[in-house]
Amino acid sequence: MNRLVALLTDFGSDDPYAGQVAAVVAAASEARVVSLTHGVPRHDIQLGSHIADASLELLPTGGVLLAVVDPGVGTERRGLIVRRDGRWLVGPDNGLLTPATGDVRCWVLDRPETWRASVAPTFHARDIFAPVAARLADYERPEWLGSPIEDPVRIERPAARVDGSAAQGEVVHVDTFGNLVTNVPASFAQTARRLETRVGDTRIEGLAATYGSGDEPVAVVGSWNLLEVAVPNGSAAHELRCHVGDAVLVRAHG
Amino acid sequence: MNRLVALLTDFGSDDPYAGQVAAVVAAASEARVVSLTHGVPRHDIQLGSHIADASLELLPTGGVLLAVVDPGVGTERRGLIVRRDGRWLVGPDNGLLTPATGDVRCWVLDRPETWRASVAPTFHARDIFAPVAARLADYERPEWLGSPIEDPVRIERPAARVDGSAAQGEVVHVDTFGNLVTNVPASFAQTARRLETRVGDTRIEGLAATYGSGDEPVAVVGSWNLLEVAVPNGSAAHELRCHVGDAVLVRAHG
Amino acid sequence: MNRLVALLTDFGSDDPYAGQVAAVVAAASEARVVSLTHGVPRHDIQLGSHIADASLELLPTGGVLLAVVDPGVGTERRGLIVRRDGRWLVGPDNGLLTPATGDVRCWVLDRPETWRASVAPTFHARDIFAPVAARLADYERPEWLGSPIEDPVRIERPAARVDGSAAQGEVVHVDTFGNLVTNVPASFAQTARRLETRVGDTRIEGLAATYGSGDEPVAVVGSWNLLEVAVPNGSAAHELRCHVGDAVLVRAHG
Repeated sequence: MNRLVALLTDFGSDDPYAGQVAAVVAAASEARVVSLTHGVPRHDIQLGSHIADASLELLPTGGVLLAVVDPGVGTERRGLIVRRDGRWLVGPDNGLLTPATGDVRCWVLDRPETWRASVAPTFHARDIFAPVAARLADYERPEWLGSPIEDPVRIERPAARVDGSAAQGEVVHVDTFGNLVTNVPASFAQTARRLETRVGDTRIEGLAATYGSGDEPVAVVGSWNLLEVAVPNGSAAHELRCHVGDAVLVRAHG
Repeated sequence: MNRLVALLTDFGSDDPYAGQVAAVVAAASEARVVSLTHGVPRHDIQLGSHIADASLELLPTGGVLLAVVDPGVGTERRGLIVRRDGRWLVGPDNGLLTPATGDVRCWVLDRPETWRASVAPTFHARDIFAPVAARLADYERPEWLGSPIEDPVRIERPAARVDGSAAQGEVVHVDTFGNLVTNVPASFAQTARRLETRVGDTRIEGLAATYGSGDEPVAVVGSWNLLEVAVPNGSAAHELRCHVGDAVLVRAHG
Repeated sequence: MNRLVALLTDFGSDDPYAGQVAAVVAAASEARVVSLTHGVPRHDIQLGSHIADASLELLPTGGVLLAVVDPGVGTERRGLIVRRDGRWLVGPDNGLLTPATGDVRCWVLDRPETWRASVAPTFHARDIFAPVAARLADYERPEWLGSPIEDPVRIERPAARVDGSAAQGEVVHVDTFGNLVTNVPASFAQTARRLETRVGDTRIEGLAATYGSGDEPVAVVGSWNLLEVAVPNGSAAHELRCHVGDAVLVRAHG
C-alpha cells in the first residue's frame, strides 16, 4: 500500500521544528514523509490554504496532508481531520484545511490517548497532529481519532470578480522567482482570444504559452492554475514594483 | 521493522552536502531518511547538542540520529557510535552526541572497510558516518562498526544557576520566529505561583499558557522544555534587542 | 529492492514546487524520495550539471536522479532519460544530464500517456518528469517512456587548462561556507610535491590535508574532487573578495 504523509507548515527550515514533526510521523507509521514546503510566511493561513488546495490532488488516494499554519496554537481552537477528494488533511481548525464553501467531512480531534503522552501547548504539530496523521495514514479510521462535526471554520480568500469580459483580482503570492501569482482563474484567461492584463503601471498584451525568455513581462497560466505575471529573466515583483494585494485587471476581447 | 535515520547538520540546504549524505544512507539501507534540520549555525556544537537532546526521544526505538557539526573534520578527532535511551547516534566525537554527564555506551569507528571506498578528508559525513548509520539502522550491531570506548568527549553547556526562588540563565538560541529560548528549565518555571522574568530591559510578569496573540512579550514554556520569551505577533529578538548569550533572570514567588 | 529517486532543482524551498514534485513521485512509485538540493542558483545549468556529476555515483544501482534546471520549460526543448553508470537521469535536454563528451544512452520523452493528465507548460518537473521518474524507478524500462536518440544537447563547462606543471582554471562555485570550489582537478593538485595556488591577490603555499582551523586561507582537495580554497574559520569568498569566474593559477613543483 502506498502510504504517504505530506507536510505543509510555516516553520521554516532553520529550526528542527519541521523535522521533529517528520520524525514523529515516521516513528509512528510506515508512511513515507515528504515536505511540500515549510516556507509559508508566518501565520499566512490564506496562502497556506492556497497551497493545500493546489497540492491535495497530487497525493495518492488515502494520502495525508499534515498542514500547520497555526497562530492560535494552544488556545481553544480545535484540531481537525478533513476528508476531501479521497485524501485526508490534519491540522488546526482555522480555515487552512477547508475550502470556503462546499461539503466536506470533518472530525474534531478529541482523543488525547492518541496523542503524544505530553503535549506542549506551543507545539501541537509535533504532539497532536503528527501522531494523528501517522495513524490516519496507516489505518484511515478517523473515528478512532475524533468525532464528526459539521461546522469547521471557513475563511474567505479574496476572489477575483469576473464580470463578462473583465476580471478584477489581485496578486495573492509572489513566488521565489518573483512571479506574481494572481487570483484570476486560468479558465477566464484561456477562453479569451485577446487578453490585456494590467498590474501596477504595466500593461501586458496577450497570453504567453510559457515563461519563455527575454526581459519583457508576460502573462501566463502558471502551475497554480491561475494567471501569473512573470519577467522571464528577472523578477516581476522587483521590476514592476508589485506586491501581494496589488490590484490586477484583465480584459478579454473576443 | 521501522527503520529510520534522522539527519542533523550545519550544512545548510543551498549546497548538495546534506542531500548527498541522505542519498548515501538511502542507497545503503532500507531505512527512511528524514532531516531534522541542516540549519544549525556553522560549527555550533552546543546548539547542535541541544537539538540532539531534544529530538532523540522522537525517534523510534532502534532509530539512528546522524548528527554532524564537525569543525574538526579530517583531523585526529574520532568518529563515534553512541547508544542512548534505546536509540543510536553517529557522528564526530566532539561532545555533540554525548550528554555532559551520565553513563552512555560508545564505540569508536575504526573499521574502514565499512566506510565508502574513498574518504574525502573534508566530508566524513558522506564517506564515514552515512554508511555507518545505514548499517546501524539495518542491523543494530555496533561491534561490526567500531570498538567500545569509555572516554567520549564531553562538553559543558552553560547551565542556568538555580538558587532557591531565583534562576540565573541565558539566551541559548533565537529561533526562526525570533523567540528567545533560554536555558531555564521548564520545571523551575512551572512550580512557581508567580513568576517574574527579566531579559535585557524587559520585565515580564507571569507565565503564559501559550504564545497567544498581541504585541506584548510573554514568558512561556516552549517545545524545547525550556523557558522562552516570545512576542506573539512579532520577533522578541528584534523588539527586545536580545541575542544569544544575554542574561536571563527569573524569580519565583510562592 | 532499493528504489530511490533523488531530486536536484533550482526551485528553492520557500515555494511548494519542489515538494509537489516529491509528492508526485511518491504517489506514483514505491521509491523513497530524497532531495539533493533545491538551491541551485536559478537557471544555472552548469552548476547543476557539476552537482549531478558529483552525486550520481552516490545513488544505488538503478536509482533515478530527477534533475530540473530548466530555463526553456514549455518551449521546444526535449525531455530526456539518460543512462549513465548504472543509474538513470530524468530532466530537460539542455546539457544538465549529459557529460560534455563520452557515450551515454538517451531516450526522448514522447509518450504523453505516461505523464500527468494535464501538463502545465510552466511545470514539466511536476507533470512530465516526476511521473516518468517514478515509473523508471519502479520498472527500469525506458522504452516504455521514450524513444532512443543519439544527439542529446551537450554543454561545455569551463575546464582548467593543465600544461605540464601549471593549471589555469577558475572559481566555479562558492559554497554555503564561502569555500571557493575551483575546476582544477584533484589529480593535478595531489601529484605535486610542492604546490602554489593563486586566486585574486592571494598566494597559498602547499596543499592542506583538511580544512583545519585558523584564519589563514588554505588550498585543499574538497568533496567535489576539485581543488578548493577555504578560510577555516571564515569565508574565503568574503575575506579574499573572490567570486565565481575568478581566475585560479596553480603551479606544481617536483
